[in-house]
Amino acid sequence: MNWVDALFRPRSVAVVGSVSPGKIGRVLVDQLLAGGYAEVVAVNPRAEGTGRIAAARSLHEIDACIDLAVVASPAATVPDVLEDAGKAGVKVAVVITAGFAEAGNAAGELEILEAARRWGLRVVGPNCAGIVNTKHDLYPTLETRPPVGDVAFVSQSGALGGAVLSWAEEQGIGFSKFVSYGNGVDLTDVDFLDALRSDEETWVVALYVETVSNGRRFMEAARRLATVKPLLVIKSGRSDSGSRATISHTGSMAGADAVFDAALRQSGAIRVDGIEEMFDLCRGFTTLPPVDGRRLAIVTNSGGPGVLAADRAEASGLRVEPPSDRLRNRLKRKLEPFCGLDNPFDLTVQATEDDYRDTLVAALSEYDAALTINVNTPYLDSAPLAAGVVAAAKSTGKPIAACFMAGRPARAALPVLREGGVPNFATGERAVSAMAALWRQSQRGESQGDSPGFPSVPPCDPEPLPWERDPLEPEATDWLEKLGFPVVERRWARTTDEAADAVRGFARPVAMKVVSPSIVHKSDAGGVILNVSGPEEAVDAFERLGVLAGDDSRGVLVSPMVSESVEVLVGLSRDPQFGPVVACGLGGVFTEALNDVSLRVAPIDSEEARAMFAELRGAAILRGARGQAPRDLDALAELVVAVSRLPFRFPAIAELDLNPVFSLERGARIGDVRVVLTRDENEP
Amino acid sequence: MNWVDALFRPRSVAVVGSVSPGKIGRVLVDQLLAGGYAEVVAVNPRAEGTGRIAAARSLHEIDACIDLAVVASPAATVPDVLEDAGKAGVKVAVVITAGFAEAGNAAGELEILEAARRWGLRVVGPNCAGIVNTKHDLYPTLETRPPVGDVAFVSQSGALGGAVLSWAEEQGIGFSKFVSYGNGVDLTDVDFLDALRSDEETWVVALYVETVSNGRRFMEAARRLATVKPLLVIKSGRSDSGSRATISHTGSMAGADAVFDAALRQSGAIRVDGIEEMFDLCRGFTTLPPVDGRRLAIVTNSGGPGVLAADRAEASGLRVEPPSDRLRNRLKRKLEPFCGLDNPFDLTVQATEDDYRDTLVAALSEYDAALTINVNTPYLDSAPLAAGVVAAAKSTGKPIAACFMAGRPARAALPVLREGGVPNFATGERAVSAMAALWRQSQRGESQGDSPGFPSVPPCDPEPLPWERDPLEPEATDWLEKLGFPVVERRWARTTDEAADAVRGFARPVAMKVVSPSIVHKSDAGGVILNVSGPEEAVDAFERLGVLAGDDSRGVLVSPMVSESVEVLVGLSRDPQFGPVVACGLGGVFTEALNDVSLRVAPIDSEEARAMFAELRGAAILRGARGQAPRDLDALAELVVAVSRLPFRFPAIAELDLNPVFSLERGARIGDVRVVLTRDENEP
Repeated sequence: MNWVDALFRPRSVAVVGSVSPGKIGRVLVDQLLAGGYAEVVAVNPRAEGTGRIAAARSLHEIDACIDLAVVASPAATVPDVLEDAGKAGVKVAVVITAGFAEAGNAAGELEILEAARRWGLRVVGPNCAGIVNTKHDLYPTLETRPPVGDVAFVSQSGALGGAVLSWAEEQGIGFSKFVSYGNGVDLTDVDFLDALRSDEETWVVALYVETVSNGRRFMEAARRLATVKPLLVIKSGRSDSGSRATISHTGSMAGADAVFDAALRQSGAIRVDGIEEMFDLCRGFTTLPPVDGRRLAIVTNSGGPGVLAADRAEASGLRVEPPSDRLRNRLKRKLEPFCGLDNPFDLTVQATEDDYRDTLVAALSEYDAALTINVNTPYLDSAPLAAGVVAAAKSTGKPIAACFMAGRPARAALPVLREGGVPNFATGERAVSAMAALWRQSQRGESQGDSPGFPSVPPCDPEPLPWERDPLEPEATDWLEKLGFPVVERRWARTTDEAADAVRGFARPVAMKVVSPSIVHKSDAGGVILNVSGPEEAVDAFERLGVLAGDDSRGVLVSPMVSESVEVLVGLSRDPQFGPVVACGLGGVFTEALNDVSLRVAPIDSEEARAMFAELRGAAILRGARGQAPRDLDALAELVVAVSRLPFRFPAIAELDLNPVFSLERGARIGDVRVVLTRDENEP
Repeated sequence: MNWVDALFRPRSVAVVGSVSPGKIGRVLVDQLLAGGYAEVVAVNPRAEGTGRIAAARSLHEIDACIDLAVVASPAATVPDVLEDAGKAGVKVAVVITAGFAEAGNAAGELEILEAARRWGLRVVGPNCAGIVNTKHDLYPTLETRPPVGDVAFVSQSGALGGAVLSWAEEQGIGFSKFVSYGNGVDLTDVDFLDALRSDEETWVVALYVETVSNGRRFMEAARRLATVKPLLVIKSGRSDSGSRATISHTGSMAGADAVFDAALRQSGAIRVDGIEEMFDLCRGFTTLPPVDGRRLAIVTNSGGPGVLAADRAEASGLRVEPPSDRLRNRLKRKLEPFCGLDNPFDLTVQATEDDYRDTLVAALSEYDAALTINVNTPYLDSAPLAAGVVAAAKSTGKPIAACFMAGRPARAALPVLREGGVPNFATGERAVSAMAALWRQSQRGESQGDSPGFPSVPPCDPEPLPWERDPLEPEATDWLEKLGFPVVERRWARTTDEAADAVRGFARPVAMKVVSPSIVHKSDAGGVILNVSGPEEAVDAFERLGVLAGDDSRGVLVSPMVSESVEVLVGLSRDPQFGPVVACGLGGVFTEALNDVSLRVAPIDSEEARAMFAELRGAAILRGARGQAPRDLDALAELVVAVSRLPFRFPAIAELDLNPVFSLERGARIGDVRVVLTRDENEP
């Protein structure tokens, strides 16, 4: 029996820990029994049962096949309990007990891991809230038992998991499985994503994470899952203070949020903003057929909410376009003359069951999906109107979301919609946001297949870099040129004479840049002089830059000015969770002013590089705005792809900044190079 | 008795229309009586009552003082009913009946207006859902009777108003007044804002509008109100399809959404995104003391939700900073060692009533406001924890918002919080969004006083423009120069010789631009040649531009290239609702590529111009990014202010585009001018 079956479909379960009233062990036993699972044994030093179940002093004293041990005994006892479990042939232990890494007790966590490894025992937790398998009546958890359904929820935070489960009833969302994995000493995000990928009882997977232990393995697992079912991810720690709290909460290091965001997109996962959006998307994905086009019809009995929903739909990427003349005429024959037929279709407060059904059926002959809104008043019976919507959903087979508002007057509609399989949302806006997510999901499936979001790392022997310390700009530029990268012409002038010679040699105005190990941000320091013409100006500039650098001066780098270019930046950095990350954006003065940068976990292929360009706010500049010629995006993509592979060949690169890269009508040229080496942590 | 008292505190109310069971008149009578208002008379041709109230054939047959007539008789009868009401001394009529402008019957609406004007009768509606004054037990409406409270809700859409009222109970929000004004033939947004400004029973005003009838009067009324109480505005029609629906829904023209957005900001109103946000902000504003600083403490029993809330807080402009050492030490003495003390303060699942109270009290000694989160589980009693929160709110007097989650396990806490005056939000994220709005409101009050968002239009006699048709660029530039605007040097060359002369005269590279009435977007058409040096190049450029313009060529405008500048655009346009609007943004190629433009309803003062610059995404470029010198923002602001006053002196200006304006280290120069005149609508 593998660990997945042992965890979710155990033959018998042992609860380890005191089962006296008020103790956690007792809550666990009561939850298991109340949920309908009877094969439970209590294990504690006094072999104390609850009157309804058997008890034993230790796990290996039990005859039954205990596949799963749920451990709630004091932290100090847990390693011995796991040792005992391993000996007794238990397959998986869920350790509820807290007081390990999250409380500074890393040693205790290591003991857990050692005991588990010794016996091939798999561990969920410690410091977790337990698990649920509704389809096996299995509830070894302290949290509310959720309704049965098709969503699996995996949560790093036990409390947040609990909040979701207890909200589920009110939200009308059912769960197939729930896992809280807490400190994740053994089984963690990646394992559960893989397990749920092939779980036929689960249609949608929702995940709450604060940190992932291995970024690349996480991406691969997310990708595998996302090709077969929707994966919704709530990731906290977007802001500085958010990250700080995450660090204190889990005792591990949070990577930059923007990188996580890129990693999720590359994996095909859907990032949601919070629990409400998660419920909305679960509702959409579990009840609606795919939304395979972006044309949305809005059928409403009230103008205002229809307009608010139309606004949100357009902002989310759907299209609320007017109907064809044919459809308009068809509706004119059916509806009262004062109805609005421009989409939103406004049936007015006099809308009947037939109006809803007929308008939806007619509209879905040319729209891809529909939102139907009913604002109910105390003197209207909402149930028949809901029946009209359900009839349309049944006869068309197309996605119809509902928003029957608000509160008591619409209450009669809710069971009609639920039994008819039509999801009802709190507002029209939230309904269309969910439908837009369904539409994006159907697009994603078609365009990306199951290839991973980053190509596998090319097999190559790691090579050393030719420097002991961060190289000077001319050294780094020479090195890139030798590797075949396109760099600008340049001369490294150490004396005024060499500078004058260089200017003469180029016969064009030049840029002169200070070379010095102590000046990293040359522009900010005034270390770049542009448009220098003729030897006299060159000598003057050389001397000014020399004064700037003082004793640390290593001369001046001279290169001809490049005109008719768009300045781009291309960069590399290392994220603690995801490793090498490649960035590109509009360069020059706009980098800092607009912060318009797109990120990807490296390496990438040229299609992904193109997608990065398209993501930029300034994308139109690269495509050639206002009569300018379009840039050579093939050349630029080739450059970004090559940069994204560098850190695998040269592991000593910590950071690389190419800024500016001159993007030209034909080709691209690197104008400035900065390389930062990885530091030995023991260095001063 | 003025119309406000007659509408909201009438001595007697007549319901005009059939009161047979199932008829709207009957619903209105029943609602009035059920709400506790007894002074009701039914008016209809058969003088039919309901058994509980008196009846008459017409309004002037009644002896009682009928201040308010609620009209639900057929559309064709309404003008006569109003005539009758006027004669009988009725002060206000609320016309529920539909079938007027919204259904193409503009003539009927005019008759209503004429009857009302004749008798000095004020009218709410037609096509509206009625009104409510909970403090006078007055419910002449078809909608749900809402709970009593401090929020007034004014809605252009009756159905959306009804949705809000019926949701109110579930949301726990109480209303003082409700007005649905429908087609707004007489009383409209401006009137109700003014009436509610001095209404002591109303603390917060929420408004749903699709269009406003007079933009400037609306801004002034909004401003007057917003200086004394918060004004929340839901405006639909953001997107193209949203606007289209709004047009069909109200039969009037929707102005561009971005202008509306600017107008609301200039008025000090708070734009909310939908009904949920409106409820959240109402909850915050009616229950919390002012949030007069941005430092927020988050006290939680669960890490995950605390982090999600911290993320949202930072994104909304609040600061979730770590505590001082003093506070940290104080908390260390009180709390268990495994609690998180970095803010979010994580009390863990073992949090007690005392922990909540003591931590909140201690934190609020150095933070401006607090969010407290409780994720409840079935085995925790949430009521005492809520009591701890309430005690802290009482003893500190500072703003504390709560999020007790989720569903049934937290239900016991809700009445405790409600009675203790602590607002409870659906999620921590929504709570901090509301607190951020309170913080912005307290900032606004301090910085702006009660001056209107735009200075009053300077008194000046309108002057004509010197052209019959849109001027050519050189003509428009000369005109601006005569008015005292800073423009670049230039020569208008009509021949190759003149072009060659011009280039010689400037002794610097020049820009040459085609002059032609048929080429408006010169850059896009290839009508601008930059960096032309020497007479030969000038002749060549002149000829190329001549070919481009063909028979419509009027020569070439020659001006010296400007270096070391940041290109800015300054523009004017006319909005159908708000009139003259001034725009500024980064100019040149970035205008179209980034669409980074800030708008204001004109005219503006220099402080507002500075605020426009600060709003731009590229604001850092103007301040001097990457070692560049900062721009002369005084000069730029002076230019924008002067432009914003032009349309009042020259009403014939429909549009003005200055693009580029060269923003320099000292001063600013206009590089290109385009003026479009207002068209006589009867012109071909």
